[in-house]
Amino acid sequence: MLAGIVNSYPQLVHRVDDSRVIIKNVEKKQVGLVSGGGSGHEPAHAGFVGEGMLSAAVLGDVFTSPTPDQIEIAIEHADQGAGVLLIVKNYTGDILNFEMAKDLAEMNDIDVKMVVVDDDIAVEDSTYTAGKRGVAGTILVHKILGDAAKNGTNLADLKTLGDQVVAAIKTIGVALKAATVPEVGKPGFLLAENEIEFGVGIHGEPGYRREKLQSSMTLAKELVNKLLVSYKQKPQEIGVLVNGMGGTPLMEQFIFINDVLNLLKQENIQVAFHKVGNYMTSIDMQGLSLTFIDLTDTKWQAALTSPVKTISW
Amino acid sequence: MLAGIVNSYPQLVHRVDDSRVIIKNVEKKQVGLVSGGGSGHEPAHAGFVGEGMLSAAVLGDVFTSPTPDQIEIAIEHADQGAGVLLIVKNYTGDILNFEMAKDLAEMNDIDVKMVVVDDDIAVEDSTYTAGKRGVAGTILVHKILGDAAKNGTNLADLKTLGDQVVAAIKTIGVALKAATVPEVGKPGFLLAENEIEFGVGIHGEPGYRREKLQSSMTLAKELVNKLLVSYKQKPQEIGVLVNGMGGTPLMEQFIFINDVLNLLKQENIQVAFHKVGNYMTSIDMQGLSLTFIDLTDTKWQAALTSPVKTISW
Repeated sequence: MLAGIVNSYPQLVHRVDDSRVIIKNVEKKQVGLVSGGGSGHEPAHAGFVGEGMLSAAVLGDVFTSPTPDQIEIAIEHADQGAGVLLIVKNYTGDILNFEMAKDLAEMNDIDVKMVVVDDDIAVEDSTYTAGKRGVAGTILVHKILGDAAKNGTNLADLKTLGDQVVAAIKTIGVALKAATVPEVGKPGFLLAENEIEFGVGIHGEPGYRREKLQSSMTLAKELVNKLLVSYKQKPQEIGVLVNGMGGTPLMEQFIFINDVLNLLKQENIQVAFHKVGNYMTSIDMQGLSLTFIDLTDTKWQAALTSPVKTISW
Repeated sequence: MLAGIVNSYPQLVHRVDDSRVIIKNVEKKQVGLVSGGGSGHEPAHAGFVGEGMLSAAVLGDVFTSPTPDQIEIAIEHADQGAGVLLIVKNYTGDILNFEMAKDLAEMNDIDVKMVVVDDDIAVEDSTYTAGKRGVAGTILVHKILGDAAKNGTNLADLKTLGDQVVAAIKTIGVALKAATVPEVGKPGFLLAENEIEFGVGIHGEPGYRREKLQSSMTLAKELVNKLLVSYKQKPQEIGVLVNGMGGTPLMEQFIFINDVLNLLKQENIQVAFHKVGNYMTSIDMQGLSLTFIDLTDTKWQAALTSPVKTISW
């Protein structure tokens, strides 16, 4: 898969020899941004490597964290002398390995800081996770920090910005059918015909409720309400990301985002940014997630809409 | 779905009031390009409306041709006084309705010509089709003709160019699992576990053989060979499109295109353009198609890679 990615987009990215690291072609003096995690979430994260977003992505096996030595290769190649920021989804294995890689790189005199994304509001403490999980909202972190890094923000300020951005992002997902990990050969969990699970994670981790499949509008109401009440103060202006899980037709995603946008209009919430498509998938899972980012009193809208040169943004 | 598309991308497209027509925002004096067909193939065709590609897309119900009056609305709104070219996939219903709309528009003094795309080499005369079917290669027609129209090519020359481009494009697909039309509620055909069908169409039309699922490389060999022998002269330089059918993870598509590119290298065929992702889907069908366009002695490479402003190219 790594070979396929770099052979399909040689104008944008290349692979660090004999590694699991995909890195952007154009190297500019800026803080390096490195993200990654298990494979199976394509286009995340390699699809977001390029000018204005990530410097490098490091890929583990399917649903498995990359190893510390692989992550360290990414850090070394992403460093232009201004340090490296790691953007890590909150899973125990990822945190452990990225932390270890950070220690290794620091021994080689590279400044490294880490931002942990935990945007999934569905459940606390899930399979593989202490605290909340990191899911589709991660790509908004890539985008906003990528824009800031490109514009010369230093490592310390990027870390501060990253923590602020993460705090503003909330995601919740639903699934109609679980992903099948190739090596396992059968779906990770079973839902009855016409049954959905609310709050499911991007590796098929359990959610908070199963019930009969409902209309897109009924689904949208539950997810929009859950997200809005998760903010301490109701946002006045937001960005919206509807993310397909890999096996969900774009047709259904467009119907769903339309319902979401109509509900937000009724709530008098301004939508300053929206995006719909497959960005953080779970192999062939049928389902989608809804992400809000609170843009009230921020200047992040410009960062979300600035041009980038990546495979998949 | 139409509302979702235009509400998600108001900066690019809008909807002609009370119609099934999605049209680009920026209107420039050029030949109008109109395409369309049944829904269920998203992002085709609305995702390819915008500067440098289509002027308008007209959407029927799922897997059902739009009606002549809807197509005529698209033609009227796409016409800037330089005429309109229709790009139609070869299905009996589409041909009939686009022909009828052409007649209606001509009565209103609009010059209209039509290019029929029949790139699928799998079978002659399939369900819904006399002759070969039009499938994923259609988006390469959109791109090349869109570039030419933007650069001022007149209607007659666009028609000639369109027919040349169509003749250079060959596609073949495989499926692991059929699409489920929402109103029907069950898959259009059944394959056994680990069985694939070669040559399947984008509405689940029958292909030419069923057999056990094989490795990506074995699949790639069959599809590459079938495509290459379908050309009268073996191409020296081609463009490659790997198209996911809607339910196929991007992970698998990257693995497959890598095998295809390796096989083409062995054949000493230059690949001047490649693209991978979900472009012409069949709702949630699991499968993919492979398209070649013969670029030997053409200048179409520049047209394939020029920048556009669309949702999905």
